[in-house]
Amino acid sequence: MIPNRPRYATRLNAFGRKGDTVAEMIAAAAQVGGLDAADLNFPDHFEHHPPAELTRILTDHGMALNGLAMRYYTDPGFRLGAFSHPDPATRRAAIDLTKRGLDALADMGGRLMTLWLGQDGFDYSFQADYERMWDDSIAAIAEIADHNPSIDIAIEYKPNEPRAHVVMPDMATTLLALAEVGRPNTGVTLDFCHMLFAGEMPARAAMLAARKSRILGVHLNDGYGKRDDGLIAGSVHPVQTVELFVALDRAGYDGVIYFDTFPDHGGTDPVGEARANIAATDRLRAIARILAADPALAEAQARQDAAAATRIVMAALYGA
Amino acid sequence: MIPNRPRYATRLNAFGRKGDTVAEMIAAAAQVGGLDAADLNFPDHFEHHPPAELTRILTDHGMALNGLAMRYYTDPGFRLGAFSHPDPATRRAAIDLTKRGLDALADMGGRLMTLWLGQDGFDYSFQADYERMWDDSIAAIAEIADHNPSIDIAIEYKPNEPRAHVVMPDMATTLLALAEVGRPNTGVTLDFCHMLFAGEMPARAAMLAARKSRILGVHLNDGYGKRDDGLIAGSVHPVQTVELFVALDRAGYDGVIYFDTFPDHGGTDPVGEARANIAATDRLRAIARILAADPALAEAQARQDAAAATRIVMAALYGA
Amino acid sequence: MIPNRPRYATRLNAFGRKGDTVAEMIAAAAQVGGLDAADLNFPDHFEHHPPAELTRILTDHGMALNGLAMRYYTDPGFRLGAFSHPDPATRRAAIDLTKRGLDALADMGGRLMTLWLGQDGFDYSFQADYERMWDDSIAAIAEIADHNPSIDIAIEYKPNEPRAHVVMPDMATTLLALAEVGRPNTGVTLDFCHMLFAGEMPARAAMLAARKSRILGVHLNDGYGKRDDGLIAGSVHPVQTVELFVALDRAGYDGVIYFDTFPDHGGTDPVGEARANIAATDRLRAIARILAADPALAEAQARQDAAAATRIVMAALYGA
Amino acid sequence: MIPNRPRYATRLNAFGRKGDTVAEMIAAAAQVGGLDAADLNFPDHFEHHPPAELTRILTDHGMALNGLAMRYYTDPGFRLGAFSHPDPATRRAAIDLTKRGLDALADMGGRLMTLWLGQDGFDYSFQADYERMWDDSIAAIAEIADHNPSIDIAIEYKPNEPRAHVVMPDMATTLLALAEVGRPNTGVTLDFCHMLFAGEMPARAAMLAARKSRILGVHLNDGYGKRDDGLIAGSVHPVQTVELFVALDRAGYDGVIYFDTFPDHGGTDPVGEARANIAATDRLRAIARILAADPALAEAQARQDAAAATRIVMAALYGA
Repeated sequence: MIPNRPRYATRLNAFGRKGDTVAEMIAAAAQVGGLDAADLNFPDHFEHHPPAELTRILTDHGMALNGLAMRYYTDPGFRLGAFSHPDPATRRAAIDLTKRGLDALADMGGRLMTLWLGQDGFDYSFQADYERMWDDSIAAIAEIADHNPSIDIAIEYKPNEPRAHVVMPDMATTLLALAEVGRPNTGVTLDFCHMLFAGEMPARAAMLAARKSRILGVHLNDGYGKRDDGLIAGSVHPVQTVELFVALDRAGYDGVIYFDTFPDHGGTDPVGEARANIAATDRLRAIARILAADPALAEAQARQDAAAATRIVMAALYGA
Repeated sequence: MIPNRPRYATRLNAFGRKGDTVAEMIAAAAQVGGLDAADLNFPDHFEHHPPAELTRILTDHGMALNGLAMRYYTDPGFRLGAFSHPDPATRRAAIDLTKRGLDALADMGGRLMTLWLGQDGFDYSFQADYERMWDDSIAAIAEIADHNPSIDIAIEYKPNEPRAHVVMPDMATTLLALAEVGRPNTGVTLDFCHMLFAGEMPARAAMLAARKSRILGVHLNDGYGKRDDGLIAGSVHPVQTVELFVALDRAGYDGVIYFDTFPDHGGTDPVGEARANIAATDRLRAIARILAADPALAEAQARQDAAAATRIVMAALYGA
Repeated sequence: MIPNRPRYATRLNAFGRKGDTVAEMIAAAAQVGGLDAADLNFPDHFEHHPPAELTRILTDHGMALNGLAMRYYTDPGFRLGAFSHPDPATRRAAIDLTKRGLDALADMGGRLMTLWLGQDGFDYSFQADYERMWDDSIAAIAEIADHNPSIDIAIEYKPNEPRAHVVMPDMATTLLALAEVGRPNTGVTLDFCHMLFAGEMPARAAMLAARKSRILGVHLNDGYGKRDDGLIAGSVHPVQTVELFVALDRAGYDGVIYFDTFPDHGGTDPVGEARANIAATDRLRAIARILAADPALAEAQARQDAAAATRIVMAALYGA
Repeated sequence: MIPNRPRYATRLNAFGRKGDTVAEMIAAAAQVGGLDAADLNFPDHFEHHPPAELTRILTDHGMALNGLAMRYYTDPGFRLGAFSHPDPATRRAAIDLTKRGLDALADMGGRLMTLWLGQDGFDYSFQADYERMWDDSIAAIAEIADHNPSIDIAIEYKPNEPRAHVVMPDMATTLLALAEVGRPNTGVTLDFCHMLFAGEMPARAAMLAARKSRILGVHLNDGYGKRDDGLIAGSVHPVQTVELFVALDRAGYDGVIYFDTFPDHGGTDPVGEARANIAATDRLRAIARILAADPALAEAQARQDAAAATRIVMAALYGA
């Protein structure tokens, strides 16, 4: 399989200092080398630039547009929810904002819209009517999918934060929702930290996504499984990262790997951090391809032989 | 609504000391007062008594049979899995054992078989073929559901333990599986601690179960959400317990409440512990019915007004 | 025991909308009724008002100054740490900023400075020299305690966020550090959510604090134990909250109860939310005083009889 | 530094099938190759063999005795606690049993007794008098340390299980307790899974142990941080394992590495599993020694430069 092109994108805001424009963030990301795609946030990143200008800025820096990601949380009006907000007028505002995002994406020739519905949730028992929230979320996603059937709508689930509980916290709930939505141009974006945070084994969640829906995006990073740490890919869970790459290859995923990491949280240099992401990913993908072709590993898996499989993986990864 | 009869069952093994027979455990449970149903484990509880004798023992102590629960973990042969075991012969043994359990249940006139598939999982990345495990689990549940369509098959999910990861760790994954199984005599058993452990809000998980499948059983207990603590119902999360009762009433659940608590783990007297379970449950169900009929709470929920809803709940629960 | 006066403070920023001044936030908090103290953040809340003016604003609204809390995280220079920053110049800047906070506090006649060292940590293995970070943290706290021995320095620990791991994540580590600091004007601020988040039983952590150091502040709130949810006091863990009040009374804690809740995160009305905090706290403290005087509970505890103790607590709390 | 001899021990019960004697388990462990030490459980492993015979069995299989580990949980009398049990007679029984264990250890020429106080805890708020439990635990450890000052007493902490909360759940609480105990022949046994479970970074916990007390034992394994998984060393967290080895070398730890893994839980072959433990450990220790001597890593750490340090570690570990 020829590796997909473009391959790597990264979180542009990691390159932002207070006051930086999106143009400056793109220029900073271009210094990394190896980043050949970008995701833009809507509406934030469009505040100072029309779509055509953003396209030109990306092109000037050798980057393709991977897609847009909606940002509802910047508007205090969405604090209680976007698609599941109790007020129909606010739900309508969230849907209309998303449609404007789809139109901007279409203007730029993009095909992928990522929705992280972090505000759609509840903090307390007895606060919400769970069934109405579910119904409204399904209806909103369906309406958005129908707005432009040539654009794929990817749901990026996350267990919580900012809300204590959310409508779509994990892979299986997202797949239940997408089955109700019933639109072919929908799917899931996998975020490694979110999967760990949800207690999932990433490769197994990827299997479910590929079986029941479509994998539309991959956000790579790492962490300790207790929150969305946003650390360098492969820095904590290299084995689980390699296994995810095997699952992605098996599922035929040919899209961009987006590094959703937070160097800014701990004061890390974003250029060096992005290079670490790329180096780790290149290496772990190579190991994944070796392991996927190893008949001894396949045989150990067929017996579910943990010791044999782990020896093979440790040997390939770090020579033990 | 007239409350269901029989109402309360409890974990019989909580009444067992080393060497106690199931007859002695039933007699001990009968001393509690208020327990009018029982679940038996198969094959463990049938080791010394044929089904007809167990029926007589239950009747003698004023208890109805709520159903049977399969126990695969007592057999070392199932350590790698039961329905998802890599060896077809072991999968067959697990299915056949379950069918014998269904036959014993039919002999006793019961209608509910609970399956906790705690062994069906994996401990390591690269240990297992996730898709094969899923397929085999689906096929086995379907075959078991078809064995006796007059018996309901309830899946009791749990995030992990003994395995680090399992095939059906949470509500949504279980509902995805049951949708594939596609048999009307299947559903879910809710276990309060397992729901907390899975990071779920119990009432919202119950809503999903009622919407997508059927609620066939309720295991009540409490804990701190980090493992399956098995504490007295209402002892840690009274608000979430009340909300679950509201959701169960709304879903029309009329079955038994089974106390799946572990007084034996901490050396607590099981009779006093079971009485605490009953007292808390009676009280919290009564509060649930008051809250379900409160228009001010409904109105607060319609606005998703956390402060107003919480004030009403705290006032009803503890007078604040 | 006559209840302490002033009694209740709250997080002023919960009353802030974008652009609000601290004067407006204090005015908004005064509308709640029942809040008779306030904590101010340094330097944020002093940006537009000198200390004397803030004193006058508080007095005008019937509020006493409970103390100040340092805020290092607003300055990007402290992203890698404040007291444990690898650069001595940045450590010095953090210490000097804290001393200016102490001077402002002294100008206002206050006696309590709260330090939440959320930036002092690390995100990766091999990122930091743990021993140097520890040494520098101890030395900085000692220097700050010595700056004005008439002011108490309270350490408010928290497991993580924003950093993945921190120097002082829990009660016992904080007590180890304070033992090394060895200054009498130091102690601990208990934050209920942080204690749950750290896996602690709040009353037991309070016992350790009182035994080994001093309890200088109490931040009340609630949550689900997986992060710092900042929910209404008593809304999730009323039993653990009551037990904490018993422990505080036993320790002779006579200070302010500060509601460290985040109505702004979920779009909740802060006035109604603060009133819910007060109502719950008044009620749960009253129950705590009843339980502390109950000889049957004392006797059950002496036997460590979980069923008997829990029955008494459930009866007192919600009539079961 | 010349590596310590003997070096590797393992959990003997991993080699037990139902009915196996300790002699058979030792013989099975000897087949692994590379295990040159063993820990025995008291009283369990002494049921059928006097100390002298156990010494001979070990010698015959080329194994040194690393030490004994007390097992209180096998006796239902200790379900409510051992050293902190509310009944003084039970506390006395636990202390006396431990002294008999010390005497057996002395007979065998051993120097290390490991105490895992898993029963010493509580499950409910209001169940226990935390201060009395603490006092009794301190007094018991002191008495045991005084029984034979030539034997080291190692406390192996664990966040919970079987009890929901325990007296000594983490490193810092254990160090607070040992400071009160005040005996030179006491210290800590580090268990990698327990440290992850406690939310600790293992190398940083080791630093605190070496600074405040002594590291007397190391239990190696791996897991996902949510429970005591007992997986193969280096199979999930190789980076954290390497960092722990660096910390152990820095602390001058020269004792045995004991593999506290549970192949039996998932049906894994214990011989292959033990060989995987040894292979991973040999390799990760070698990498630890390379990294400890790398001036570029030391320089990156001095700046707390996460990207630079992580690149160096990933390059050494897996060539990225």
